[in-house]
Amino acid sequence: MTRHQGRHFLHIPGPSPVPERVLRAMDMPVIDHRSAEFAELGKTVLQGAKAIFKTANPVIIYPSSGTGAWEAAIVNTLSPGDKVLMVETGHFATLWQQMAARWGIEVDFIPGDWRRGVDPAVIEEKLTADTAHQLKAVMVVHNETSTGATSRIGEVRAAMDRVGHPALLMVDTISGLASADFRFDEWKVDVAVSCSQKGFMLPPGLGFNAISDKARAVAKTNKMPRSFWDWEDMLKLNANGFFPYTPATNLLYGLREAIAMLLEEGLDDVFARHQRLAAATRAAVDHWGLEVLCQEPKDFSPVLTAVLMPPGHDADQFRQIVLDNFNMSLGSGLSKVAGKVFRIGHLGECNELTLMAALSGVEMGLRVAGVPHRAGGVDAAMTLLEQPLPGNAPRHLAVVK
Amino acid sequence: MTRHQGRHFLHIPGPSPVPERVLRAMDMPVIDHRSAEFAELGKTVLQGAKAIFKTANPVIIYPSSGTGAWEAAIVNTLSPGDKVLMVETGHFATLWQQMAARWGIEVDFIPGDWRRGVDPAVIEEKLTADTAHQLKAVMVVHNETSTGATSRIGEVRAAMDRVGHPALLMVDTISGLASADFRFDEWKVDVAVSCSQKGFMLPPGLGFNAISDKARAVAKTNKMPRSFWDWEDMLKLNANGFFPYTPATNLLYGLREAIAMLLEEGLDDVFARHQRLAAATRAAVDHWGLEVLCQEPKDFSPVLTAVLMPPGHDADQFRQIVLDNFNMSLGSGLSKVAGKVFRIGHLGECNELTLMAALSGVEMGLRVAGVPHRAGGVDAAMTLLEQPLPGNAPRHLAVVK
Amino acid sequence: MTRHQGRHFLHIPGPSPVPERVLRAMDMPVIDHRSAEFAELGKTVLQGAKAIFKTANPVIIYPSSGTGAWEAAIVNTLSPGDKVLMVETGHFATLWQQMAARWGIEVDFIPGDWRRGVDPAVIEEKLTADTAHQLKAVMVVHNETSTGATSRIGEVRAAMDRVGHPALLMVDTISGLASADFRFDEWKVDVAVSCSQKGFMLPPGLGFNAISDKARAVAKTNKMPRSFWDWEDMLKLNANGFFPYTPATNLLYGLREAIAMLLEEGLDDVFARHQRLAAATRAAVDHWGLEVLCQEPKDFSPVLTAVLMPPGHDADQFRQIVLDNFNMSLGSGLSKVAGKVFRIGHLGECNELTLMAALSGVEMGLRVAGVPHRAGGVDAAMTLLEQPLPGNAPRHLAVVK
Amino acid sequence: MTRHQGRHFLHIPGPSPVPERVLRAMDMPVIDHRSAEFAELGKTVLQGAKAIFKTANPVIIYPSSGTGAWEAAIVNTLSPGDKVLMVETGHFATLWQQMAARWGIEVDFIPGDWRRGVDPAVIEEKLTADTAHQLKAVMVVHNETSTGATSRIGEVRAAMDRVGHPALLMVDTISGLASADFRFDEWKVDVAVSCSQKGFMLPPGLGFNAISDKARAVAKTNKMPRSFWDWEDMLKLNANGFFPYTPATNLLYGLREAIAMLLEEGLDDVFARHQRLAAATRAAVDHWGLEVLCQEPKDFSPVLTAVLMPPGHDADQFRQIVLDNFNMSLGSGLSKVAGKVFRIGHLGECNELTLMAALSGVEMGLRVAGVPHRAGGVDAAMTLLEQPLPGNAPRHLAVVK
Repeated sequence: MTRHQGRHFLHIPGPSPVPERVLRAMDMPVIDHRSAEFAELGKTVLQGAKAIFKTANPVIIYPSSGTGAWEAAIVNTLSPGDKVLMVETGHFATLWQQMAARWGIEVDFIPGDWRRGVDPAVIEEKLTADTAHQLKAVMVVHNETSTGATSRIGEVRAAMDRVGHPALLMVDTISGLASADFRFDEWKVDVAVSCSQKGFMLPPGLGFNAISDKARAVAKTNKMPRSFWDWEDMLKLNANGFFPYTPATNLLYGLREAIAMLLEEGLDDVFARHQRLAAATRAAVDHWGLEVLCQEPKDFSPVLTAVLMPPGHDADQFRQIVLDNFNMSLGSGLSKVAGKVFRIGHLGECNELTLMAALSGVEMGLRVAGVPHRAGGVDAAMTLLEQPLPGNAPRHLAVVK
Repeated sequence: MTRHQGRHFLHIPGPSPVPERVLRAMDMPVIDHRSAEFAELGKTVLQGAKAIFKTANPVIIYPSSGTGAWEAAIVNTLSPGDKVLMVETGHFATLWQQMAARWGIEVDFIPGDWRRGVDPAVIEEKLTADTAHQLKAVMVVHNETSTGATSRIGEVRAAMDRVGHPALLMVDTISGLASADFRFDEWKVDVAVSCSQKGFMLPPGLGFNAISDKARAVAKTNKMPRSFWDWEDMLKLNANGFFPYTPATNLLYGLREAIAMLLEEGLDDVFARHQRLAAATRAAVDHWGLEVLCQEPKDFSPVLTAVLMPPGHDADQFRQIVLDNFNMSLGSGLSKVAGKVFRIGHLGECNELTLMAALSGVEMGLRVAGVPHRAGGVDAAMTLLEQPLPGNAPRHLAVVK
Repeated sequence: MTRHQGRHFLHIPGPSPVPERVLRAMDMPVIDHRSAEFAELGKTVLQGAKAIFKTANPVIIYPSSGTGAWEAAIVNTLSPGDKVLMVETGHFATLWQQMAARWGIEVDFIPGDWRRGVDPAVIEEKLTADTAHQLKAVMVVHNETSTGATSRIGEVRAAMDRVGHPALLMVDTISGLASADFRFDEWKVDVAVSCSQKGFMLPPGLGFNAISDKARAVAKTNKMPRSFWDWEDMLKLNANGFFPYTPATNLLYGLREAIAMLLEEGLDDVFARHQRLAAATRAAVDHWGLEVLCQEPKDFSPVLTAVLMPPGHDADQFRQIVLDNFNMSLGSGLSKVAGKVFRIGHLGECNELTLMAALSGVEMGLRVAGVPHRAGGVDAAMTLLEQPLPGNAPRHLAVVK
Repeated sequence: MTRHQGRHFLHIPGPSPVPERVLRAMDMPVIDHRSAEFAELGKTVLQGAKAIFKTANPVIIYPSSGTGAWEAAIVNTLSPGDKVLMVETGHFATLWQQMAARWGIEVDFIPGDWRRGVDPAVIEEKLTADTAHQLKAVMVVHNETSTGATSRIGEVRAAMDRVGHPALLMVDTISGLASADFRFDEWKVDVAVSCSQKGFMLPPGLGFNAISDKARAVAKTNKMPRSFWDWEDMLKLNANGFFPYTPATNLLYGLREAIAMLLEEGLDDVFARHQRLAAATRAAVDHWGLEVLCQEPKDFSPVLTAVLMPPGHDADQFRQIVLDNFNMSLGSGLSKVAGKVFRIGHLGECNELTLMAALSGVEMGLRVAGVPHRAGGVDAAMTLLEQPLPGNAPRHLAVVK
């Protein structure tokens, strides 16, 4: 509890703010998880999740965090001693790699500078060299939450196809899904990992695995002990809308509502909105004369923007000043970039004015903290947000005249 | 229902946004309004309301709107044919005058230009002239919601005292209370009228009358028929925490929480916050080259700022563009100033970043609507909000280190 | 706050328990009451309320209690000195009569013993005698909340028709509407008064007037001062879904949901459910050897059952024992029957098992309190509730198989 | 979605009904899980959970189901090939045994008839025979949710102590904790497993492990691959109120509130309440002439009562009739007893009248379903619930007079 007055602005790159509709949907009595009423709920969310992943394949929903869903992807597909290819896109790619190592996986971890997404050419090169097909999986992060760099998964797939390598393509789209364009079937992803508290706009507590037929087939023979995360146990009961153990019922109420909201807006419009907000954020950062951590324009994240502090200025001290003075939470730099960057989340239930509040808070915070910058970043963002969306239609149309 | 995405920014000058804590406090089962548990609630809110009005006298709480509380003030104190003095500070003063007229009251309605509060000198002059003490009440609006001009009630009282006139001082502080400084006892107000949906940060549905001993004595002999609004019926049951008819229980839950929040922040800090936000708003408006409706700096409202549109530009068309494009509601011009002004509410649960969102929405709206203005108003507001609050302490202190 | 554990059973005859759906619908941000979005809400509830009153005529919705809606009925239709006919069916009829008297109405108040509804024959007799048509209105209570006796309004209307008397028929259906059969148009009611916290299953805070063309015509020429309650002011703005002063927005959200729930169940099914629960309650009371206050079977209320305590036993002491031991609120005896009766509410969101909880609490309370009675009342109620509803279909059908 | 009217009675043995206070506590904006405000929350729930387990040792909280917490207990303490002793108390003991087997554990699974708890003498015998101390753990279920039999854990510990066997004592108290007496430290339990949706009165989504120093020491050298469930990762961050991956923040809000409620009532009073409700339930079942599944009175569960159907009557058909007619969910028979028993949950937010509703629903259901039984079970339960709690004080005392 703090003495802050009024609305807190949560601009970390997840958990993202939960819409009132979703909170209220969860604020209902729990029901019997073996009832017909529950089965309806179960079928609705299991089906709806497919639409969000853009897949006709099954999506598994765990009562867990995204970290749990990472583990599920590993233990269902790999065996101790297996070799996989991973890319150091940032902190979370590194954590996933460490988890794989704990499970006895041998990871070829392509080093990275945390300032860009995966380079498809390097993947292609590595796979070409692996003529013995020892690599069982290519495991990449779609949107690096720690850096604000997005990897072009479609191009990674194309590289794999060119080589004709049989490795599984496993993608962490924890902070990408439902904010950045993601196409499970089109990109022939084999396992996609996500969670509830980012683009789904839910509180934390659900983990997701979307799985291809190929992944599912592999899971039937791999040699990793497991029980809680076992896909087949899940799929058997999911067929009728049920789960093998008590699901997180109220979070599923919220998921039903969140999926409905995403589909009401339309996924393409959701993606366009995120792109627009991200572009406005970068316009402000550029104007301030600060540096966006991500250096590859093709990889700029629509979900968050990580900003480098000028030398001699501590990002965490800056974040504390913003919190104390303007009641806004910004994301911290993690691990290698701790104290060096702050992250602005602009995902989920974020719109133009919410973003303007956030950018105003950053600009005022820079001044209060004495961080050198050029005033006017907020104006730069406004200049961009004044532009109509494609089609020149009003950006929001009231349904009621 | 609209297609707007994300949080709606409600910046009309009331109803003001309801804090989550207050909404959740109301979202509880209704209880027996004749139970001991209810009596505790009743006593708590009846006592707490006194603190907000700054009075040791009773405060009546009606299940009604502020309009109802206006009527209660009239029917409990005046008799058909009574003469009263009122001042045309704006639309709501005019409505209250019309209501008095409907009840057979003869109103000496001092004309006004809607651009300032009450002039205490004119009150003094009128009362001095009324040597026969025919005027039974001076009825003024503390904060004119239609214009953004605040009347200096303390000075009005001083004028009455100088003349030694026995008229009651009746004050509409519907949009003033709990946002602008108001002191029932110190200013010797006789009846103060307020409601739930402004500074109290509640949904509409409660009306308030604070009443002096003098007003209560008058009420015992006045000649106006009444039943629902009768003060004595209320006070009799209020003594034990009850009400003569079913009260709006769940709104009282919210009132208990809202009063607690106001006292946690501290009324003086609440007032200072509103002054600060209002000053930032005017800094933006001035920079844009637009005109604040209120022309008397001493009367600038901390609650809302009404802004004149340049000639040839329709305020309602502008408001619609802001709503359609930026999902924000601004207040319309009412009656005489319809189409000519828009109003920015900055009351209740409003803080620095919420206000910055609102001002950004106005500035972007001006550009989208093609309204001539000088860019940079948002920057002007930020410059002001970067300044620390008095005492040079961080403006918000985290309780937890 | 009490130390009671678990769910409180609220079995007073209103406020009735508010369904979760309704509470959650109200737990949403307040919106601009002058917006297009609000107009949609306004139109929906104003239209929906007509369905509940079974009328094609307008229904007025006040931010008030039912007491306020009583006052509205009086001040819009009557003039000081007017004569009206009322019937002493119980405490609330008496209160309404007192209110009318306060407004200068001369009431011919037919005395009653509080143990039955209105006798249509007496009405007929009175009207027949009034050859000069001095009686301007017949004002009766549909369901006497203080006694559990329902008046047969259709028969009252038939009596009026037989005489050909032009008096208005004004009906308090505060606790009857949406629980007991009520037909505004078919019974040619002129003004019906109701509120939110009974059959509408809402918290208190809304008052209703349904009005006939005849009543509206009368309102245009009657001589009672009024402003807040004025019908025409309301109707003028209601035409577009708006209100002349700030409406109780969040209660209207709840009203929209409650009307939807009532229509989903179907009004006839709602009435049948109430009749069934009332019959089960009386079966228990009869078995206990206690006496139902209402002596006329045709007038048994489907909304509540008032029960006479045996001589020498205080009803309020009994109610306190039930509250202390079983966490249930029962209604008290009011005025003439204070301490002599307790009232069991079985209205609104009440179903078979909720009622069985209540009756179990009464039976256990009787034993704990040492009130003489015959055990087995709960069994008697179960015997009735085991019977299928007409049509022999399962009493509740799961929509999902 | 069903057409059921009114409140649903959820009387499965978990998830248990969630109190309004807990639901509302969760219905709040998610906060930054790396903030000082979160750390306060984290410390509060981690500390509070200790009070509920009655331990001074750490309690781990996972974003998972109870099944996940089972897995955590196994993977942190055992190694592939380890031998453990388990007892077939019912369906859930069997599932836990199957899980252990999947992880390569060799289980000595003492067969059982599902009608009683663990026999401490058999444990003692087994451990005495294990002179080589090959058994690494004794793993038992405290309260068998499938049968309504509670195991006397204190006696199991005494047996272990008598033998002086070093095996870990691992206890599933998933449905026991916070309803049935449980004493982690006093009984020297090494790992206790629980979850949120039973005695904690929360929605599903949290799993718990309480761990002794001995268990923690074992965890440092055991040979089971793990990452998500790793205790040390958790404990490292828990020290400051944080978690190694995003916790289920809103469920933690609810946990804070639920722990507060349990401690307000007092754990001993919570246990006494459950015992009382269970006794009343068995009184009804006995009177009906039906058989309680549990045959050992010392093992009767305070949490739920499983009831055997008479031969020729299907329990699931009966449950459906109860659901269709009386809007109540009862628990099904699982696995070996599918169709043969139904289970009445009386845990969590259950009080006397809630139970009476449930028992009335069962008795009426028996008649509607044509199941032979002796009427009067509800009366038998009432007879018991009329008795005052020990001390002869009113069973519930209003705090307010």
